[in-house]
Amino acid sequence: MNAEIIGIGSELLLGQIANTNAQFISQRLADLGINVFYHTVVGDNNERLKQAIEVAQTRSDLLVFTGGLGPTKDDLTKETIAETLNKQLVYNEEAMKTIQAYYDKTGAPMSENNRKQALVLEGAAVLRNDNGMAPGMALTENNHTYMLFPGPPKELYPMFTNYAEPYLLGQLKQGDTIVSRVLRFFGIGESRLETELEDLIDQQTNPTIAPLAGEWEVTLRLTAKADSKEEANKLIDETEKKIHARVGTFLYGYGETSLPKEVFSMLKDRNWSISTAESLTGGMFSQELTDLPGVSSLFYGGVVCYSNEVKREIGVSKETLEAYGAVSEECAIELARSVKAKYKTDVGISFTGVAGPDPSEGKDAGTVYIGVAAPSGEKVVALNLAGNRNAIRKRTVKHGFNTLLKLER
Amino acid sequence: MNAEIIGIGSELLLGQIANTNAQFISQRLADLGINVFYHTVVGDNNERLKQAIEVAQTRSDLLVFTGGLGPTKDDLTKETIAETLNKQLVYNEEAMKTIQAYYDKTGAPMSENNRKQALVLEGAAVLRNDNGMAPGMALTENNHTYMLFPGPPKELYPMFTNYAEPYLLGQLKQGDTIVSRVLRFFGIGESRLETELEDLIDQQTNPTIAPLAGEWEVTLRLTAKADSKEEANKLIDETEKKIHARVGTFLYGYGETSLPKEVFSMLKDRNWSISTAESLTGGMFSQELTDLPGVSSLFYGGVVCYSNEVKREIGVSKETLEAYGAVSEECAIELARSVKAKYKTDVGISFTGVAGPDPSEGKDAGTVYIGVAAPSGEKVVALNLAGNRNAIRKRTVKHGFNTLLKLER
Repeated sequence: MNAEIIGIGSELLLGQIANTNAQFISQRLADLGINVFYHTVVGDNNERLKQAIEVAQTRSDLLVFTGGLGPTKDDLTKETIAETLNKQLVYNEEAMKTIQAYYDKTGAPMSENNRKQALVLEGAAVLRNDNGMAPGMALTENNHTYMLFPGPPKELYPMFTNYAEPYLLGQLKQGDTIVSRVLRFFGIGESRLETELEDLIDQQTNPTIAPLAGEWEVTLRLTAKADSKEEANKLIDETEKKIHARVGTFLYGYGETSLPKEVFSMLKDRNWSISTAESLTGGMFSQELTDLPGVSSLFYGGVVCYSNEVKREIGVSKETLEAYGAVSEECAIELARSVKAKYKTDVGISFTGVAGPDPSEGKDAGTVYIGVAAPSGEKVVALNLAGNRNAIRKRTVKHGFNTLLKLER
Repeated sequence: MNAEIIGIGSELLLGQIANTNAQFISQRLADLGINVFYHTVVGDNNERLKQAIEVAQTRSDLLVFTGGLGPTKDDLTKETIAETLNKQLVYNEEAMKTIQAYYDKTGAPMSENNRKQALVLEGAAVLRNDNGMAPGMALTENNHTYMLFPGPPKELYPMFTNYAEPYLLGQLKQGDTIVSRVLRFFGIGESRLETELEDLIDQQTNPTIAPLAGEWEVTLRLTAKADSKEEANKLIDETEKKIHARVGTFLYGYGETSLPKEVFSMLKDRNWSISTAESLTGGMFSQELTDLPGVSSLFYGGVVCYSNEVKREIGVSKETLEAYGAVSEECAIELARSVKAKYKTDVGISFTGVAGPDPSEGKDAGTVYIGVAAPSGEKVVALNLAGNRNAIRKRTVKHGFNTLLKLER
């Protein structure tokens, strides 16, 4: 089954938003083993949309439409599809209830054009909208499947996952269960990870292994097809074991996690509190940690020690600054040790270095020291990072979290 | 002139990246007054790309291709276009020099397939690549213009702005000069801004006024066409005056600026140093400020005062915490005053509040106080922000910068 994703909306053609809906749907379809061969974007224009549908019918089995299901006169997706397929639009009771419920909740009066949203393609399965008013639709005829989704991602994403995927699995008629598992790596680049796993990635088809580079992280998505969930998981387990043997040391988590989340749960597990002393990262580490609700139970505070005076004030000795400078192993460790003592926490972590673009204290941009003082002892990680100011700071913070994850009890 | 943007690359169809190149180019073409009627994405596949070109030729005058100009065998954009147009690929001396220079700089050996990148469409204008190896191309024949760009945004964006736009202006043959000016607003929502300016936005065609919502900011792009730059700027000035009269109080800057950048230059102008005390923002304000190189000249440091003990330690009185709590006007102002004194700066700014999701101290998520102690006096801004934890923190930081911008000398 080959798919084409057709986005409808002038805001895409004016460049006001990127077509992230097509990205999301492409990922999901890839997981289902459906090839996406084309994305198309067309404006809110009856003629051009009609022509795009005709082109798509000649080259794709599954036509996925996003956008243009709203109440205004600009919204003409289902009207144009109905016209092309020679179908009526019929009034849907369930959809109308959803719309009515929305107005009841907000107390706003419902304008007449909102009833338009309850019209669906005759013969289509209705995909419920749990986060908005316009229902989705799915219709299969003459060897083509047509699926219609509202444009706002917060409506489309759950509708796709909860209602459209089961419909598609039904279309695939394989009775297969598909299971995905995402492995998250830090400290290894995408190309090296791919090289280490090249034979597995190239030769294995069940599960498939799809690498994806994120923001200075890499993920692998393993997707298996089998008769049951248990069997699919067993296939994934076997492959994961092979991956572990080669690059397991870089694996830090599964699924929708992050380095800060992993650190937070590690600290909670060990009942460790933490404090920070940030020079080159300027507060970024503390900010990422405090993005997580509930972290106040173990993070009391930190210091953004941008100037040498503030470093001195925390507890770095004059001798250290004079002999080694602020960008040094010695300064990093004294900062970590002092902030741990100052805030009476179990762990102190510090960041010092040169964010650039210019060198500082005779050290190049990208020279970074991370100091950690923990119950298991003290350590310094020295890094030489490439990239611009923003990249150096972000990667430093990630290295900081990773260093904490590797701490012994 | 109607345009179609054709993105080439399996990474787009697999959903590994969003098609932000199409978004960027759409914005630029809109500024030039060129209508974009279609976006298409197709994989690295000769047959399907050929078919996409043929479809595009029937419906678009300008065909903009992105991606597939690299050295590997997957990269077949120019080969396929050459085939479709019955053109040869010819060796380009200038492009080869760029490639050679790249290898000379990095010291890496050049593999043979890199020479492929110096091949260009016979008769095409070569668009220089200042940030990579693959040159761009522009070719006009039989009432169609074909433009080819490398996929990486850091190569494409400057190539488009610096070399492709002049080529397109030549194609437009109107002798028109097009000038754009971007106005940045904070503290007013997109819908309210649009309502205030509705008549101008709807009725004016030169300059056009295009609103765009960013991250808790709104921009207006004014674009004028005229015989000369001076005349275009005069038209924009006149419209800007009208906009000023209605919503000028929310305007904070022009073009590629940001609230932190404006604050940095304001502080430099006044020769004011600054320090921070961040509770709910957890270091985010300091981090955004220190994103700017050179800010160490006036930002010495700050405290992330997550716990009440740390707030006490900076200088908030026990009485204040007991009588009003940490989330209070009184605590905000004492934090700002104390941190200013502690670090001996001209300005102290503090953030306290409830980021959520749960209420704290009996106050709802979104209750925020920003304290400022400055040479011109002290003030507190009280806010009631909606949104999730991340939204509340980000908007708080923006309000902080905006509050500083409004300070009297």
